[in-house]
Amino acid sequence: MPELRRDPVIGRWVIITTERGKIQPVPSKVIEDKATAMAKCPFCPGNENRTPPEISAFREPGTRKNEKGWWIRVVPSKSPVLRVEGNVSRRGEGMFDFMEGIGAHEVVIETAEHNADYSDMELKQVEELIWAWRDRILDLKKDSRFEYILVFKNRGERAGASLVHPHSEIIAIPTVPVRVKQEIEGSRNYFEYKERCCFCDIIREEMETNTRIVSENEDFICITPFASRFPFETWILPKVHSSVFEDSQKHEVANLSMILKDLNWRLNTVLENPPYNFVIHNSPCRNGKMVHYHWHIEMMPQLLRTAGFEWGTGFYINPTPPEEAAKFLRDVQ
Amino acid sequence: MPELRRDPVIGRWVIITTERGKIQPVPSKVIEDKATAMAKCPFCPGNENRTPPEISAFREPGTRKNEKGWWIRVVPSKSPVLRVEGNVSRRGEGMFDFMEGIGAHEVVIETAEHNADYSDMELKQVEELIWAWRDRILDLKKDSRFEYILVFKNRGERAGASLVHPHSEIIAIPTVPVRVKQEIEGSRNYFEYKERCCFCDIIREEMETNTRIVSENEDFICITPFASRFPFETWILPKVHSSVFEDSQKHEVANLSMILKDLNWRLNTVLENPPYNFVIHNSPCRNGKMVHYHWHIEMMPQLLRTAGFEWGTGFYINPTPPEEAAKFLRDVQ
Repeated sequence: MPELRRDPVIGRWVIITTERGKIQPVPSKVIEDKATAMAKCPFCPGNENRTPPEISAFREPGTRKNEKGWWIRVVPSKSPVLRVEGNVSRRGEGMFDFMEGIGAHEVVIETAEHNADYSDMELKQVEELIWAWRDRILDLKKDSRFEYILVFKNRGERAGASLVHPHSEIIAIPTVPVRVKQEIEGSRNYFEYKERCCFCDIIREEMETNTRIVSENEDFICITPFASRFPFETWILPKVHSSVFEDSQKHEVANLSMILKDLNWRLNTVLENPPYNFVIHNSPCRNGKMVHYHWHIEMMPQLLRTAGFEWGTGFYINPTPPEEAAKFLRDVQ
Repeated sequence: MPELRRDPVIGRWVIITTERGKIQPVPSKVIEDKATAMAKCPFCPGNENRTPPEISAFREPGTRKNEKGWWIRVVPSKSPVLRVEGNVSRRGEGMFDFMEGIGAHEVVIETAEHNADYSDMELKQVEELIWAWRDRILDLKKDSRFEYILVFKNRGERAGASLVHPHSEIIAIPTVPVRVKQEIEGSRNYFEYKERCCFCDIIREEMETNTRIVSENEDFICITPFASRFPFETWILPKVHSSVFEDSQKHEVANLSMILKDLNWRLNTVLENPPYNFVIHNSPCRNGKMVHYHWHIEMMPQLLRTAGFEWGTGFYINPTPPEEAAKFLRDVQ
């Protein structure tokens, strides 16, 4: 059973789990063996029996569950960091706090094509992927043990992806992560002082100065944030205030798929298919609508290694000014 | 001029600097070229002219500055992330806050031997290295523009080191980093509630349960922390409460060098010379002695990649229980 453990100083929770393949001494070799041993892709059509039974899928009428005929398929993770079974109960051990590692960990197989990227996919495919994320969030929110649903994607080995076949991940957790708390608290402080949403202010500011905009459409804007932590870090924000991703309207989902596909094309062209992580920053399950919080996507290309200075201070060192990154991404032909 | 920029939501400061070699599109190639081009080691004796002029050195009597005859040598970084010249002044640009990238960035060349490791070095060499760190902290603290002095080491390419020759780094910055603030605030809250230092409590708890102790001596204890973020993460803490590293007494410096050398030997043996980052967690320059804060060293082997989940949530996933890591490190022969 995985465990959540709380650092008594900072209040940061950590998942302790041996279920993803326990790391023994000389762990890097173990990891490499695992990666190279995976010769046959479990996410390709025809290999449906190599994943746990599907949770949901977008598939052709008349085709059967766990068989071919799908174009988006959601399955439980084979090596989940958290487990669905159990109760959310905290307990102490001396001065330390434990919580059981309850949660859900799902994989969204984003296409039947082994090598496709958002930029290669039909717009409709990307749009349906967003609907698939939304469906899963809505479903997982019904489980009252979960306080936060995280949707994210790791692309490329360097960004932590173990498989090439395009996939994103959804993790439901029984506590609000510290980084989300900080973001919500920070935006609340800003709102209390200014009576305006900080993210709405950022959008206004970026549209006025127009030096960090990568692209925009009717509903979304893509920027390189002022205090980018990583070279070519980009954020996609809805122009109309909304704290809840799953409240997006149909035209917004369409425009989000367009800007996300377009951003992938820009990144792939400028940086030659960089490894990246993206994360949907969304409201916690029980927060409801918030005037001060604004959901968005943070896209982080992984071009550098994080070193001691960053770990020690939370101070990131970014060698690429966001204004220059925006210009590269904006001007790409 | 590098710049510090503040994220308006979380309050996280970021350094924007192009001075470490500006990253153009396809940056990973640029980085690799730079690393392989460095054929002749600038940190080896005889190459003193390949670094900026030395700040200080431990050297044989009669030898001259910037020439051979040293066994520890401190030089300014050739590609500093912050610069000494300038004023600490904040300014706004629209809604955003800037600060000039004032600071100091020094490199401590830890030995004249190109390939030595703490575990190979004479104990006296490690001890003098600690005195060298302390000397530099005391000197940099005289500059009232600096609020925090960070001492850290990146070992191995994967941990962000660009050169093999053993070296640590010292960075002085004009603001207290957010992670340090959180740690101090967390420990203050704990103290207010319990009227005890949280770290002192951790030491007591670990000595009682005795499942996460790696090693100890008269003055220091080395543990795998309860909520380890990384496999084989270890902390070294002084047993007697002290918030200020540079207040360490002579016997403490001797015992610290012993436990640090020993820990390196253990890590090298169990994990085959892993890449790592370590960071001295010390009080901010202006805080003076604190009853609630306790300086310590955090050693983080870099065995895994940090992926989207960690970036999105601050939730780390650690596949190795600290109790098992401690056992491996404790039992090594």
